[in-house]
Amino acid sequence: MAGEERRLANGATFIDFQTDPSRYRHWQLAVDGEIATLTLDVDENGGMFEGYQLKLNSYDLGVDIELADAVQRLRFEYPEVKAVILRSGKNRVFCAGANIRMLAGASHAHKVNFCKFTNETRNGIEDSSENSGQRFICVINGTAAGGGYELALAADHIVLADDGSAAVALPEVPLLAVLPGTGGLTRVVDKRKVRRDHADYFCTIEEGIKGKRAVQWRLVDEIAPNSKIDAKVVERANAFAASSKRQGKGPGVALAPLARRIDESGVHYGFVDVEIDRAARIATISIAAPIVSPPADADAMVAQGASFWPLQLARELDDAILHLRINELDTAMLVFKSHGDRDLVLAYDAFLEAHRDHWLASEIRHFWKRVLKRVDVTSRTLVTLVEPGSCFVGTLAELVFAADRSYMLIGEKQGDNRPPAELVLTAANFGAYPMSHGLTRLASRFQADPTDLETARARIGEPLDAEAAEGLGLITFALDDIDWNDEVRVFMEERASFSPDSLTGMEANLRFVGPETMESKIFARLTAWQNWIFQRPNAVGQHGALRRYGTGERAQFDMTRV
Amino acid sequence: MAGEERRLANGATFIDFQTDPSRYRHWQLAVDGEIATLTLDVDENGGMFEGYQLKLNSYDLGVDIELADAVQRLRFEYPEVKAVILRSGKNRVFCAGANIRMLAGASHAHKVNFCKFTNETRNGIEDSSENSGQRFICVINGTAAGGGYELALAADHIVLADDGSAAVALPEVPLLAVLPGTGGLTRVVDKRKVRRDHADYFCTIEEGIKGKRAVQWRLVDEIAPNSKIDAKVVERANAFAASSKRQGKGPGVALAPLARRIDESGVHYGFVDVEIDRAARIATISIAAPIVSPPADADAMVAQGASFWPLQLARELDDAILHLRINELDTAMLVFKSHGDRDLVLAYDAFLEAHRDHWLASEIRHFWKRVLKRVDVTSRTLVTLVEPGSCFVGTLAELVFAADRSYMLIGEKQGDNRPPAELVLTAANFGAYPMSHGLTRLASRFQADPTDLETARARIGEPLDAEAAEGLGLITFALDDIDWNDEVRVFMEERASFSPDSLTGMEANLRFVGPETMESKIFARLTAWQNWIFQRPNAVGQHGALRRYGTGERAQFDMTRV
Repeated sequence: MAGEERRLANGATFIDFQTDPSRYRHWQLAVDGEIATLTLDVDENGGMFEGYQLKLNSYDLGVDIELADAVQRLRFEYPEVKAVILRSGKNRVFCAGANIRMLAGASHAHKVNFCKFTNETRNGIEDSSENSGQRFICVINGTAAGGGYELALAADHIVLADDGSAAVALPEVPLLAVLPGTGGLTRVVDKRKVRRDHADYFCTIEEGIKGKRAVQWRLVDEIAPNSKIDAKVVERANAFAASSKRQGKGPGVALAPLARRIDESGVHYGFVDVEIDRAARIATISIAAPIVSPPADADAMVAQGASFWPLQLARELDDAILHLRINELDTAMLVFKSHGDRDLVLAYDAFLEAHRDHWLASEIRHFWKRVLKRVDVTSRTLVTLVEPGSCFVGTLAELVFAADRSYMLIGEKQGDNRPPAELVLTAANFGAYPMSHGLTRLASRFQADPTDLETARARIGEPLDAEAAEGLGLITFALDDIDWNDEVRVFMEERASFSPDSLTGMEANLRFVGPETMESKIFARLTAWQNWIFQRPNAVGQHGALRRYGTGERAQFDMTRV
Repeated sequence: MAGEERRLANGATFIDFQTDPSRYRHWQLAVDGEIATLTLDVDENGGMFEGYQLKLNSYDLGVDIELADAVQRLRFEYPEVKAVILRSGKNRVFCAGANIRMLAGASHAHKVNFCKFTNETRNGIEDSSENSGQRFICVINGTAAGGGYELALAADHIVLADDGSAAVALPEVPLLAVLPGTGGLTRVVDKRKVRRDHADYFCTIEEGIKGKRAVQWRLVDEIAPNSKIDAKVVERANAFAASSKRQGKGPGVALAPLARRIDESGVHYGFVDVEIDRAARIATISIAAPIVSPPADADAMVAQGASFWPLQLARELDDAILHLRINELDTAMLVFKSHGDRDLVLAYDAFLEAHRDHWLASEIRHFWKRVLKRVDVTSRTLVTLVEPGSCFVGTLAELVFAADRSYMLIGEKQGDNRPPAELVLTAANFGAYPMSHGLTRLASRFQADPTDLETARARIGEPLDAEAAEGLGLITFALDDIDWNDEVRVFMEERASFSPDSLTGMEANLRFVGPETMESKIFARLTAWQNWIFQRPNAVGQHGALRRYGTGERAQFDMTRV
């Protein structure tokens, strides 16, 4: 049975989502005025795990971590960049997609986590384009197969070499008995709007589609002969830059390495502390309020750069979530807590709202949106405990609304002189942070009666104690000190005893109420089907296609159609 | 490993979806004027398979086949019925949901097919309410657990006995390590609009929720003491009937038993013939045009009853699809063909369009809509071959648009004097038959450029030969006689060689382009996750919760969170 985790390469003891361009092994980021170029040139010997080589620009999670880092840096470090060219550094090869030997040897959990992260990275590219004015152009100079084409699909514009050989392909079904799982099926029909029968044909041929048919079927935007393709791409990039709404000027903000310490007890950052109770299978994520007031103005915010509280906190929280997802697989539950000066948190929310049109404030809010979306699709039970001394207000209150359940303590705790917990809503709770299905967490919460949303909006700025918050429907349960410890403990013990799979499925269904978008469809319809297939012997069994690939032996299938 | 199919009870050799009230073992259908009552009183010893008893009004597929039959008959046989009361025939027990021993012993394919059919039945109840003016009231007189509550969720109005004991519950996650898989999770948050954190609580407790909290949390509409509950329900039923838009008068149409012959070669009906090539794993479904003109008027249509061509054909096609789904699991592909007098098919479409406000014509079109939806969610590759002599026009052309791929032959076939194939569009292709996600098949097909939809609409009534149909984007490939046999054969052979699982996943993604509705979310997000969980050892493994249930031994879980 496929599924034993390989050893990490180079003696690494955990998967690290932190990197920077000086450490990239697979990507080069070059910036020339308004145009950046991201070149994929995978180091065959730079795989994250032992036991495979990354041939033909195929990738593993390590390659995608670099891409995610580069996309993030483009937004923060390069306010002047308005178009990004995605290309291959290898001759006549664009990208062969996810490395098959890596997939064949990976555990089910790793496969699922890998797909989730790569999906988030591609969604991030689209978010850059939509909200940051950084438009992406992808140049395909050879075969773009599977995840290679799915990477191209994240771009706004795809140019394919017209050389009789370069092609786009999604050969997963015929070759590997799995799905194009990084949004490919969804993006082909929902974003590129390829007709479904054309898509059916395209997704069942190994060799892919090239030339004019690729354009006619909307798989790419244009083709160009090799002699003209570079000029064409520069032309497109300039046109995208000229029409970009991106208004960044002046210096960017360097995303300095996070100060982080990982030890047996958890992960420790400046404003985020993760404490892992492995016996209880609980990770408690404590978030600290800022300790100084917001800067005087936008220039001062830029000058603070990566240490500006909302930005540093978002980066730390993002890293913590990613770390827990992939390195702490036995964790059943993420418990969010907060502490510190509520008024300072409110002041930062007000600062970001006041400067919402400034490029950096805008980038920070969009980053928070993405971090919160990552929380939403994290397959752990999410619990928020709102206790005395906490500061779940405004942006941080989103962690209350993102939780599967929240508990709020009424009044004071015995022997604890911190002030009773209060929530405060701000404008940020009413639009800045939509979930992947397009609704804010509060709109989602109050779908039964939208007047409840207006009732809550009317209370913006007002401290809401536990009973008020419960009355408004902002929390799940308000408990007094007498009941608190027992109720919360019993809930957590019971929750941790349930089958993790059924919780994953249940939470994935209950969290996304109402409409779906292309993005949410990728995490629902597509991902859930792929997860199913990643369990099926026809793919991962001893005679399955993923295991047999490259062995010269044909896969053997159970032909029962389910 | 769970998964060996049990033997069918009573020596049955296949699962039969045909029944009628005289043969019901589990339901009673009683009609009193405008009000019908459907009473669930499961015969413990009437299970479909050997090896379990249907205790506590728990159900298996056989119970649901009767329910689906009753719901269908209410629409056709009882035009006067405007409200339906769903209730239990057992004292202080409503329904314990899907039988757990049945589930534990069922193959993966049976579990998936069972859930699909029960979902379709519940969607059918909602379709009756929305489109047929038959509103459903559910009376819960005891415990409604799991699928029992999911049945109630399909109703418009739920009345719960307020006796300190009757409760609604979705205990699948804590008890069985699976999901409430018959739409429960989706309907709780999307239809009943229960707040997601309340839903989280509700779906993780075994004992369920009763009394006032059930109303406050929107899980039921009202509670009533046992002494008053019957009067309350009658009152509601009368109110629903009074406000119903149902306009049926006079006699209904008896759904006489289908004339059907099942043999080794396939299934043979009056207008539908299914030929099964087991070596090639292909079922060819041939549809015959009518042989007589439509009746003179609506009264004559009612007089023809179940032999009225569109109704007979829809019933036969529905039965054929259901039969193939569950009794022919190795079939890779359904190939639709048609033959007969195209003009007569057009005449019936025109007749239904002209009488669209007549209750029976309306019921027939809604039935066609449901049959076509069943085709859409059938996990087999769908292919339509449009050949000389075929009659894929109007309603039947939906089978071209429902297909994953369609092939149309250009001109005549050598040695075949039938006229070249032509498609004809009718008004029915532009609104009568929406898919589960709310779009018509043509709107879905032409999402890239809605003007293509208008171009097609402008050609209503015009015979379109293969090249015209290809030009309009109505078919996948137009082939001449020289290429036809080879191309179609190679495609089918190749398709049948692929992993059935990856095809199921691929088709489920490509068929549903664009928006999602509650109904389509049930077949996407919810069902795909449930299918995944139905593969996980934590549910179905030797130590999993489904297998351990009732043994006194606790399930053992792999606590890796995926």
